[in-house]
Amino acid sequence: MHNGTSRHTSPGASRELIVKPQTFTFAAPPTEMVLESGRRFGPITVAYETYGELNAERSNAVLIAHALTGDHHAAGKYHPADKVAGWWDPLIGPGKPFDTDRFFVIGVNILGGCSGTTGPASIDPATGRPYGMTFPVYTVRDMVRVQRELLAHLGIDRLLCVAGGSMGGMQVLEWAVTYPEMVDGIIPIATSGRMTAMGIAFNEIMRQTIMLDPGWQNGDYYPGTGPAKGLAIARMLGMVTYRSDESFAVRFGRRMADTRSTVYYRFDNSFEIENYLHYQGEKLVRRFDANTYLYICKAMDLYDLGRDRGGIEPALSRIRAKTLFIGVNTDWLYPPRYIIEMADIMARFKQEVAYWELESPHGHDAFLIEFEQVRPVIAGFVNDLAVRRRIK
Amino acid sequence: MHNGTSRHTSPGASRELIVKPQTFTFAAPPTEMVLESGRRFGPITVAYETYGELNAERSNAVLIAHALTGDHHAAGKYHPADKVAGWWDPLIGPGKPFDTDRFFVIGVNILGGCSGTTGPASIDPATGRPYGMTFPVYTVRDMVRVQRELLAHLGIDRLLCVAGGSMGGMQVLEWAVTYPEMVDGIIPIATSGRMTAMGIAFNEIMRQTIMLDPGWQNGDYYPGTGPAKGLAIARMLGMVTYRSDESFAVRFGRRMADTRSTVYYRFDNSFEIENYLHYQGEKLVRRFDANTYLYICKAMDLYDLGRDRGGIEPALSRIRAKTLFIGVNTDWLYPPRYIIEMADIMARFKQEVAYWELESPHGHDAFLIEFEQVRPVIAGFVNDLAVRRRIK
Repeated sequence: MHNGTSRHTSPGASRELIVKPQTFTFAAPPTEMVLESGRRFGPITVAYETYGELNAERSNAVLIAHALTGDHHAAGKYHPADKVAGWWDPLIGPGKPFDTDRFFVIGVNILGGCSGTTGPASIDPATGRPYGMTFPVYTVRDMVRVQRELLAHLGIDRLLCVAGGSMGGMQVLEWAVTYPEMVDGIIPIATSGRMTAMGIAFNEIMRQTIMLDPGWQNGDYYPGTGPAKGLAIARMLGMVTYRSDESFAVRFGRRMADTRSTVYYRFDNSFEIENYLHYQGEKLVRRFDANTYLYICKAMDLYDLGRDRGGIEPALSRIRAKTLFIGVNTDWLYPPRYIIEMADIMARFKQEVAYWELESPHGHDAFLIEFEQVRPVIAGFVNDLAVRRRIK
Repeated sequence: MHNGTSRHTSPGASRELIVKPQTFTFAAPPTEMVLESGRRFGPITVAYETYGELNAERSNAVLIAHALTGDHHAAGKYHPADKVAGWWDPLIGPGKPFDTDRFFVIGVNILGGCSGTTGPASIDPATGRPYGMTFPVYTVRDMVRVQRELLAHLGIDRLLCVAGGSMGGMQVLEWAVTYPEMVDGIIPIATSGRMTAMGIAFNEIMRQTIMLDPGWQNGDYYPGTGPAKGLAIARMLGMVTYRSDESFAVRFGRRMADTRSTVYYRFDNSFEIENYLHYQGEKLVRRFDANTYLYICKAMDLYDLGRDRGGIEPALSRIRAKTLFIGVNTDWLYPPRYIIEMADIMARFKQEVAYWELESPHGHDAFLIEFEQVRPVIAGFVNDLAVRRRIK
């Protein structure tokens, strides 16, 4: 077994995960999936990756849920020469907290995604054309139900742990509430039990920006690039909400690339914060579908753990999983107080729950940045779950 | 003399201000104004209003500076039947803190505005066509220098007080630093000494949204409606930054106008927070010019009190005015810490300075909402300035 620091002490190439995405298709007509909205939908292809081996008892599966612009590539590289590894690679791999020498870790692209799972850019077999805006509105609960189908396909009927941040955290909570008997432990990070009014406000502004772009064409832009500028601006706004005044102040302040006063007074001058945001916007456009962005934002708005369950308290009371909530002190999009509220409710119900706060200037995105702080906390929690299941 | 509560005890119609906007034009070629950028510009027409009478000593003038989408109509009504009074009417009028029975109060539309002062929608006499994006980039310092010209025209060479919030507060600070010998007292509210990286980020996103609208036509849309949708979306974003998670949670939460589940799962469903923001966006479009919005946001980005003055400390050290800084505890766009930082610097310089914090759930906009709290604080401060000048 490797401890949580092996990444630093033995970063040998032989210990690097080389992974391969896979797909699974289900819900082909006439046995379509019935979405939360009541609409029947299928077939559904799910893109996923797995790291490590499922043990004989099938007791060591860990599910990683991604955020808005994430995907199933949570760890490792496709080729040794890849410059970047999966989005949570510092936490997933041999000797890491989600230790692939011990656990069978699954990354999965959400329903409606644009990285391999059926989404608005996929071909509607009924018309032979991309769904576009005819794609059904789906919810976080639907994402989780699709993941449940994938697990059945993999022969897994319980999860040692489900973990994820932001919209990933919403899926984590839905997992524990929808399938309480299937989940040993959960780690919902920088998330909440329902989308706040302010969160809905930002999502609506991002949607409106995308739909304002003439390239959007009511979502019927395939195979073209679509509303590239609108999506880039939406991403710029998203990035601002994921960080903090403090982190921007330290990293960019009022610096300009060109400080000449002839440039300072030009309308098209650029502070470095602006260049950074434009870069982030353009970067997302190259890998993300605008319609998927629209639908995911809507799914987040509709997210309400207590809906049709009598409210947040009865919903949380269903959870049987050992729960580790993680919040970020500077996260103003998913403020700690809403997370603490959930932890307090579960504590009142005598559920096995803890809240841990990440201290970081980086705001919401700290769960994708502050690996040093998060690593021992997650490692300890997951190890405890493993010990209970006698996983070596 | 009326005390600060007379508005409640004697709100008789006879005490209501009926006002009339006026204009003043200067800087006609060949004596154009030289902007901070070095560019010569003129003629410049300034729209303004005055309330009360200038006293014989010309010592009772008070200047009110407006924020992004404000104007010179700070108080009173144009006609008794008007539904709404000026934007700071609860603070300006007979018996109010800026007591028009004692003071000569001036509201002025900023340079580049769209309510009567020369701005991008004005006709360029050189071409006979609207300036559009050929309008020069101007700064907060330029706005203040234009106001200085208006005062000269009115025969005023000193101000008892300059007050304003947000970008108004930036003008207030620039007044006290640019013309220290002219200002007795200042009240900068919910503002800062320089635009933060996060503030620049939001401004750039709003600019990009306006310019994304095909109706913008590179600013050459007059006399058409121009980028109405883009401006509305920019305003929606502005509104979110002016309020707080808490105020939205209390006022809107996750309420929907139509709660049927058939509507809940529609892509075009609407939470009430969304309807509210759309309403605010459309409302602004009817009264505001998109190019003006672009230029003002740029002026705010360029705002840096310490620029060409050796930094913020030397700049603040110039101030001779008695200073009352006001911050809002929930203002995350202009957080109190930046205001307190300025107050602390001035205190170290032994300047006459105080900081007072408004406690409100409403965020940045609290200075346009929380009149009950602000009224006695401002009344006391202004009265003290008046007593020093022996104004009855």
